[in-house]
Amino acid sequence: MITLTFIGYGNVAQHLIKAFLNNSEIKVQQVFLRDASKAIYPAIDFEFISDWNQLTPADIFIVAVSDDYIAEVSSQIPLKNQLVVHTSGSVGLDTASDQNRRGVFYPLQTFTKGKKVDFKEIPICIETEFSSDLDVLKKIAKAISNKTHIINSQQRKALHVAAVFINNFTNHMYQLGSEICQENQIPFAILEPLIAETAAKVTHLSPFEAQTGPAKRNDQKTINAHIDFLKSDAIKQSIYKLLTQSIQENGKKL
Amino acid sequence: MITLTFIGYGNVAQHLIKAFLNNSEIKVQQVFLRDASKAIYPAIDFEFISDWNQLTPADIFIVAVSDDYIAEVSSQIPLKNQLVVHTSGSVGLDTASDQNRRGVFYPLQTFTKGKKVDFKEIPICIETEFSSDLDVLKKIAKAISNKTHIINSQQRKALHVAAVFINNFTNHMYQLGSEICQENQIPFAILEPLIAETAAKVTHLSPFEAQTGPAKRNDQKTINAHIDFLKSDAIKQSIYKLLTQSIQENGKKL
Repeated sequence: MITLTFIGYGNVAQHLIKAFLNNSEIKVQQVFLRDASKAIYPAIDFEFISDWNQLTPADIFIVAVSDDYIAEVSSQIPLKNQLVVHTSGSVGLDTASDQNRRGVFYPLQTFTKGKKVDFKEIPICIETEFSSDLDVLKKIAKAISNKTHIINSQQRKALHVAAVFINNFTNHMYQLGSEICQENQIPFAILEPLIAETAAKVTHLSPFEAQTGPAKRNDQKTINAHIDFLKSDAIKQSIYKLLTQSIQENGKKL
Repeated sequence: MITLTFIGYGNVAQHLIKAFLNNSEIKVQQVFLRDASKAIYPAIDFEFISDWNQLTPADIFIVAVSDDYIAEVSSQIPLKNQLVVHTSGSVGLDTASDQNRRGVFYPLQTFTKGKKVDFKEIPICIETEFSSDLDVLKKIAKAISNKTHIINSQQRKALHVAAVFINNFTNHMYQLGSEICQENQIPFAILEPLIAETAAKVTHLSPFEAQTGPAKRNDQKTINAHIDFLKSDAIKQSIYKLLTQSIQENGKKL
């Protein structure tokens, strides 16, 4: 039995706790949250605490708080020689306090409040300060996900930037497309099959092979028509020009 | 029985022909292609021709050629009072020659050579010069797709620009993410679940509601760290800055 204690009870913590509760070899022992009144989840299976002194030793402490609080919160744990891991994509392992053994347990996914998540398909990126801690972290990762990766802090930083492009910026492309539809009385649903197909394509083709469109085929006539179409929307027009240029330069590189 | 003749035999034509061949109420009658040696498809079900004078009347002529050739090719059809539709997202109905009744039959999807397409889920955007032609065009659209939309030329132009953002530019975001992975020895497959979840999210949330990330939550510290991370790649850094700015301005708008 591996015992887990969560520090923090936000979106990521709640999703992880739900995933771990289904596993017979893992016990969520305590959940620390500063404001005890926010303990909405029925605490039948574990104990909610709000006082650092109530914290008891556990195999792993999972610090699931905002990036800015990882250093502070990890330094407040009044225990020694514990394995303390954070869940952030962008914060280095060494940001956490060195009074305990440090590690990272980063689920690479976009969590939406209230939406169920199938952890089996979510890659978990793990890292530990001491190689002797890797096994136990691997075990809890494999308990909830089929996809565990050992990723160091520098790689994780890169992965987080890549994820901004692939998740945040892609979603913003959907947003810009939906605005163009709305301004022209076109239901956005028309574009949903295209969104699904675009995402599906890169599971069997590289993004480079999958690239199509006026920029890729250097169709300057269509590009000019589109730039003209966007003339009353300066930021969309700038984005169109810059991404077209980037696709074209990409074509030259390879 | 509705008779169809295709002018052109590229990617779009071949996908459409395959879809129509399965339908008992539609007959593909002739396929015109300039270069007869390219008639690779076993022409058991229809006739390949390369001489305009062999063209016989049909209920609908589908001109599936590159945008730049629609005007020229449609003017070469040596028949009168036929319904001639093109398949382009970016070319107006009135670009085709007015010697016949004009229309548009635009399947909104990204076609990859050799990859099977399920037309049932592909929106077909139709438009006709004369309302009396709308019925027959609707019929052939509904024969292959569950999603038929009547879209005028101005809307179709907007839709095509929106599709560039949603398909071409989204795929380019995947490309930039994959380059960052490659430079840091991270397998791109780690990001595949995130690609799928990002696309799936907007089937039940608006892109605005689905937006997450440092730009959305004005996390300037992470944004600065990412901009610094990209310092040796000028175009990626420009794209990061511009899209971050666009997401932030979007947040202010609503």
